[in-house]
Amino acid sequence: MERLPGFRDFYPEPLPSHDAGWSFDARQYIFDKWRETARRYGFREYDGPPLESLELFTTKSGDEIVGQLYNFTDKGDRAVALRPEMTPTLARMVAAHERNYKKPIKWFAIPQLFRYERQQKGRLREHFQFNADLIGETDPAADAELIALLIDTLRAFGLTKEDFVLRLSSRNAWHEFYETGRDGVSPSQKTDEYDFFQTIDKLERTPPQESETKLAALGFSLADVTQFIESGKPTVELQSILDNLAARGLREFVKVDYHVIRGLAYYTGTVFEAFDAKGEFRAIAGGGRYNNLVKLISGGRVDLPALGFGMGDVVLLELLRARDLLPKFDATTDVYVLIEDEPLRAQSLKLTQNLRAAGYAVDYPLTPTKSDKQFKRAQELKVGYTARVESDDYVRIRNMKTREEVVAGFADVANHLG
Amino acid sequence: MERLPGFRDFYPEPLPSHDAGWSFDARQYIFDKWRETARRYGFREYDGPPLESLELFTTKSGDEIVGQLYNFTDKGDRAVALRPEMTPTLARMVAAHERNYKKPIKWFAIPQLFRYERQQKGRLREHFQFNADLIGETDPAADAELIALLIDTLRAFGLTKEDFVLRLSSRNAWHEFYETGRDGVSPSQKTDEYDFFQTIDKLERTPPQESETKLAALGFSLADVTQFIESGKPTVELQSILDNLAARGLREFVKVDYHVIRGLAYYTGTVFEAFDAKGEFRAIAGGGRYNNLVKLISGGRVDLPALGFGMGDVVLLELLRARDLLPKFDATTDVYVLIEDEPLRAQSLKLTQNLRAAGYAVDYPLTPTKSDKQFKRAQELKVGYTARVESDDYVRIRNMKTREEVVAGFADVANHLG
Repeated sequence: MERLPGFRDFYPEPLPSHDAGWSFDARQYIFDKWRETARRYGFREYDGPPLESLELFTTKSGDEIVGQLYNFTDKGDRAVALRPEMTPTLARMVAAHERNYKKPIKWFAIPQLFRYERQQKGRLREHFQFNADLIGETDPAADAELIALLIDTLRAFGLTKEDFVLRLSSRNAWHEFYETGRDGVSPSQKTDEYDFFQTIDKLERTPPQESETKLAALGFSLADVTQFIESGKPTVELQSILDNLAARGLREFVKVDYHVIRGLAYYTGTVFEAFDAKGEFRAIAGGGRYNNLVKLISGGRVDLPALGFGMGDVVLLELLRARDLLPKFDATTDVYVLIEDEPLRAQSLKLTQNLRAAGYAVDYPLTPTKSDKQFKRAQELKVGYTARVESDDYVRIRNMKTREEVVAGFADVANHLG
Repeated sequence: MERLPGFRDFYPEPLPSHDAGWSFDARQYIFDKWRETARRYGFREYDGPPLESLELFTTKSGDEIVGQLYNFTDKGDRAVALRPEMTPTLARMVAAHERNYKKPIKWFAIPQLFRYERQQKGRLREHFQFNADLIGETDPAADAELIALLIDTLRAFGLTKEDFVLRLSSRNAWHEFYETGRDGVSPSQKTDEYDFFQTIDKLERTPPQESETKLAALGFSLADVTQFIESGKPTVELQSILDNLAARGLREFVKVDYHVIRGLAYYTGTVFEAFDAKGEFRAIAGGGRYNNLVKLISGGRVDLPALGFGMGDVVLLELLRARDLLPKFDATTDVYVLIEDEPLRAQSLKLTQNLRAAGYAVDYPLTPTKSDKQFKRAQELKVGYTARVESDDYVRIRNMKTREEVVAGFADVANHLG
């Protein structure tokens, strides 16, 4: 029986046959760094259900998203979907209990997310994502705090400014450009502005002639748009974020880049994406302000400004591997108890129990095993020490690195382990 | 918008309105203890996909299980299901790459599992489960090692022999009883023995007259069955497990109890369940040997003996709450940086950055805030210290416990934090 296409098995350590290097070890390493950085920034972890009502996702993203979802009708006739993203769940949870929390709310999660796109052969249908959000503060200081978290998260993996860049942009800047450019042409319409944003979003992947035509239909010229992007002039809001980041010593990781506008309709202000500096990979992370979402999800009951970002495990792992920044994950067994004299097995089990109770990771041969095989096993497990019960009262301890041996009293073994 | 019935939101800390006490804090506390105990026993963590082919589960449990699953047809016309248990995935993963691993394989996982039973109103449809398995060893020493892990996992939460008991039994003992009792009655048939096991499994929840009738139809008397259970005489295999546990000092946590046979058809030897000693809750954990499953799942390609157990988070949390064994989960912010002088905000951000880079969890007011409000926020966050930049060169540090204050050089703050 096979696993479903697009899903990953996480074996404890990388398999020789797994080029991609997926393993539980690597996954846990990434999760630990995410958690540790979030902790330093005062973000608290939450989680929601992996299955939600379909409506939660269509309310945010429109019915088009259904084509990309793992959605189905459950046995109670509910339209449900495996979560494709975390933000709608977060908005639902915050709206349900916002009065319990002082603002700003600083939360993060590490959900597994699911997408089903039929044509995407060979592409993953699930991934894990570090989601950090800051809710209840409109000031750009909040944007700076969240972006600083994103930068320091990548730095926690050993990535430097030679490895990645955060491209900072703003829907507000583009809105202003749109409003100004349309002066005297026609009254702006919301759908028009959305089309305009979509055209900007696709600019880098579209032939210039095509963009020119699309922009002309909206009352703009490609030359003006290109000039605006190339000026890279920060708005007052972006300048405030840049100054804030400069005070932290993080200015060099950020570049104003108005190419970034992000396709999702719901962003309302600052938007940003992190890329590897060489441009070899897809975006490492992306996010921005979504000041209207909590209101939308709560049916107007709760109105809170918010912003957040998501960072997936897949591109990040690829980048860390390419930059040789994944550590070697060694097994964590501390002691191997050698049992060479079967009458001493009971006493050896007692020693095993005592050392485990003292916090050591301990293994031993479950059944009678030849001495050399036991020693080989201890070496495979890369243990720091072996311990052999010599009598009810004494234990011979061997430091596997220094090869030094000592004989210790039975109750005294832990004192000889480093 | 509401979350789906039977699913849980995990807020960072318990909400006043959440009687059940679900919170991410509590969940993480439980996961950490599970991981820590597994580590001491030399078990390595793995994970598989939450979505698998339906066939994986029906192969193990028969088509009846479909009535209890979250199953559906995906957009590629595959019959799939959210995993209701982890063992089939484990068997699939081990069978696929068993040659990469030295035996015995000692693995654990903490999957979220899903069941959809239409009539179960108010009952949870998901839970997390600690799954530990030992693969590739038939000797009862493996059973003892796994049971010891189960016991020490519960002890890691502060539970004692006054709180829980592990009821140990054996399919082999019942098989022997069945074969002996049927001597000269009729040749035993596999379906008959399955019916017999089912009747034993339900004995404690069935009126005696009904059990009597069912047993008679299979060629047994309730009196003989009851006598066998009451004798509680360990088989050679069980005695070996008990002796092994005695050597570890864990004998007192275990009671031979032949009531336990476990309904699942696939167990082949030792079976066991852990219960709270007062009998107030459902089983805390259960498991046993399943020597045929890897062979079944791999279509006969790989044949490996195995045993394992599962321990859910729901009953465990209820028990820990009832015994007052859940710690108070305090937020983990170390330092609050007070910004009372706005011209010093940039320098305060720099201090925040430095302390975070040094590993401290640090928070600060995002926007200009009154002094007393800032101090109150620091108290709410239960920080150990406040730090106020007094000039570019000096910082005033206050120990929130002792109320002592010192003024330190800007680069020297971390040396004054405990």
